[in-house]
Amino acid sequence: MASRVARLQRVLESEKLDGLVVSGAANLRYLCGYTGSNGMMVVTRTRATFFTDFRYQEQIRTEVRGCAKRVLERDLYASFPVEAAKRLRRLGVEQDHLSVARLRLIRKQVRGPRLVAVRDIVRELRRTKEPAEVRLIERAQQVTDRVFAAVLGMVEPGVSEKDIALEIECRFRQAGEVAFPSIVASGPNSAKPHAGYSTRRLRRGDALTLDIGCRLSGYCSDMTRTVFVGRPCDDLRQMYEAVLEAQRRSLAAVRPGATARAVDAACRDYLTGLGFGHYFRHSTGHGVGIEVHELPGLAGTSMHVLQPGDVVTVEPGVYVPGLGGIRIEDMVLVTKTGCRNLTKSPKRMLVL
Amino acid sequence: MASRVARLQRVLESEKLDGLVVSGAANLRYLCGYTGSNGMMVVTRTRATFFTDFRYQEQIRTEVRGCAKRVLERDLYASFPVEAAKRLRRLGVEQDHLSVARLRLIRKQVRGPRLVAVRDIVRELRRTKEPAEVRLIERAQQVTDRVFAAVLGMVEPGVSEKDIALEIECRFRQAGEVAFPSIVASGPNSAKPHAGYSTRRLRRGDALTLDIGCRLSGYCSDMTRTVFVGRPCDDLRQMYEAVLEAQRRSLAAVRPGATARAVDAACRDYLTGLGFGHYFRHSTGHGVGIEVHELPGLAGTSMHVLQPGDVVTVEPGVYVPGLGGIRIEDMVLVTKTGCRNLTKSPKRMLVL
Repeated sequence: MASRVARLQRVLESEKLDGLVVSGAANLRYLCGYTGSNGMMVVTRTRATFFTDFRYQEQIRTEVRGCAKRVLERDLYASFPVEAAKRLRRLGVEQDHLSVARLRLIRKQVRGPRLVAVRDIVRELRRTKEPAEVRLIERAQQVTDRVFAAVLGMVEPGVSEKDIALEIECRFRQAGEVAFPSIVASGPNSAKPHAGYSTRRLRRGDALTLDIGCRLSGYCSDMTRTVFVGRPCDDLRQMYEAVLEAQRRSLAAVRPGATARAVDAACRDYLTGLGFGHYFRHSTGHGVGIEVHELPGLAGTSMHVLQPGDVVTVEPGVYVPGLGGIRIEDMVLVTKTGCRNLTKSPKRMLVL
Repeated sequence: MASRVARLQRVLESEKLDGLVVSGAANLRYLCGYTGSNGMMVVTRTRATFFTDFRYQEQIRTEVRGCAKRVLERDLYASFPVEAAKRLRRLGVEQDHLSVARLRLIRKQVRGPRLVAVRDIVRELRRTKEPAEVRLIERAQQVTDRVFAAVLGMVEPGVSEKDIALEIECRFRQAGEVAFPSIVASGPNSAKPHAGYSTRRLRRGDALTLDIGCRLSGYCSDMTRTVFVGRPCDDLRQMYEAVLEAQRRSLAAVRPGATARAVDAACRDYLTGLGFGHYFRHSTGHGVGIEVHELPGLAGTSMHVLQPGDVVTVEPGVYVPGLGGIRIEDMVLVTKTGCRNLTKSPKRMLVL
C-alpha cells in the first residue's frame, strides 16, 4: 500500500499538485485497503492520511494500511480536516468522484490552497497490475470457470434464464461477491448485448450467452461464453465460428507496444470482411481490476498502447436481431513478450 | 409519472428555477420509471425530456413514461442536449448527484442559462409516498417477513452467520433484489450496529441480529429482529425487554404533526432512564422508499415533522461490547390519524 501512495506522490510532483483529496471508492481500496462506504484520503507529497467516521473505527484498525488514520464526524466533507491541507498551494480533488455539493463544502472551509479539479490519476495508477493483484484476478476467474462448468449441467429446454442467473449468483456468493449483474440471455434475448436476464425458458436451438464475473478479495473477473441448447441453425454456427476466429485474432494481437486500436481492428476487420461489421457495435474490451471496467479501453477510438501489467478483456460479439447473438470473452494479462490468458473455460462450440 | 413531474414543475416555480437537470438514479426512477444506469432528465416548467444512450433504446420504449425521450451519445454530459436548455435563465443541477467533471462538461456547452447547484429537490418530493408506492413497500416487506420466518428454521448452534446471510439473499433474489448488504450478527458481533456477517458459527446463548431488506419493483423494505440461540443470559433478556418497550414508545409517538425529535426522544429517554443511553448511539429511524435511506430522518438533531405518507423505520438498539446487541426495527406508514405498522414479523422474544 505504501508503495502505491509513493507512486501517487511522484505523480503529484509531475502534475504540480501539493496534494490530492481521494474520494473514489476503488481508489481508496487501492491506496489503503479500505472497503467501507464513507472514506476519504488526503495525500500530500510527504504524508497520507485516511479519514472515516466512528462506524468504521473498528474496521480500519486492521484493514487500512500504509497511512495515518483519523476518525471525523459522519459527513467527512462538512467536517473537512483543514489541517491536513495546511500550507499547500495547489490541492487536487477527484473531479469524477466528487459531487458539486462536496466541492462546495470543501471550498467553504479550506483557506489557503487553491482547489484544482483533476482527472482520475489514481485510476491511471491502478491500470498496471502488480503480481499480487494478478493472482487475485486469476483466483476470481478460477471461481468463475468453476461456476460456469457447474451451471452448464442445468442447461436444458424449460429452464429459465432467471433459474440459471440465480444459481450462478448464489455460487458466486459462496466464494465472494457478484462483480456485476449477470447476463443470461437466450434465443432472441442473446441478440441484445446488455440483456440481463428474464423469465424466458430455454428452447431447443437457442443460443445462450452467459456474461458473468465475481469479486474475490476486492478483485473482479469477467468472462462470456455462448453455448447452444441443442443443435443450432447453420447461421448461428457460422456466427460462432466467426466470433471465435475473430477473438483468436485479437488475442494474437495483444502484446506490449500494441495499440488498443490494433487489437480492436484485428477482430473487427475480420468480422467486417465476413459481413458482420454492422452486427458488432460495442468495443472489443476493457481493463479489469478492482472495478469491472478499468483502463485501458480496447476500442477503435482508444489512444492506449498496451503495456506489461495490463489485464484486459477481449470480447468480440455478433448480434442479429430476432436470431440471436454470440459473444466470447477472455481476460488476459499483458506480459513482457505477449499475453497470458487467465480464462480457462473451453471455447469450442458447446451443444448441450 | 406525469403528476410527479408536474409536482416538480411547481417546485421549480417556487424556487425560481426555469429548469432542472436530474441526474440521481433514484430521482430518475421516481420521475419517469427509468431503471438503467446511464440516464438524465431535463425538466423545464413546461416540458420534461429523458435522455439515455443507444444501449437502453429498447428498454426505455416501455419503461420510461410521462415525458419525451431521446437517445444521445454514450456520455450524456459530454454531448449535453443544449437545445433542451435553450431560452432558460436559471437552470438547476443536482449538486448531490452531479460530479465536478460533469458540471464542467455542461458549463462548456450551455450558453445562456445560468447554472445553479441546488439541493435534492426530487428527494424531498419522494418523501411523501403515494398509495401505489406504499403497496409496493408493503409487498417488499411481506417477502421479508416470509424470508425471516423461513430462515428461523435454520438457526441452531454450529450454523454460520454466512450460511444464514446467503440463504436470505438467495431467497430475496428469487422474488426481487437484495436492498442492502444483510446484517447477520451473532454473539459479540451483534454488539456492532453495522456488523455485516462473518463466518462465525452460532453458539448456545448467542443473541442473533438480522437486519435485512429486499427491493421489489424498485421499492425497498427494511427490518431488524434479534432472536436467541437457546436461552440467553439475564442481561440480554433485560436488554431485549428494554428495547422492545422503547420501540413501543416511539411507535406510539408516530403520528402526523409529531416531530422527528419527539419520536427519537420517546425511545431514547426510556433507554437512558434504564442506564442504556450510552449503548444506543445511532438514530431512531429513517424514511424508506426507492432508496433504503430516505427522508425524513428520525434523530435528535432532525428538524422534520411527520406527515401522512411518510414511511419510516423505528429501530432503537442497545449494544454492549463483548456481550451482544439487541435491535428491533419496524417500518411504519404515517396515516391521517397515527400510523400503520407495515412489518408483521413477531416481536416477542424468540428463543430458538
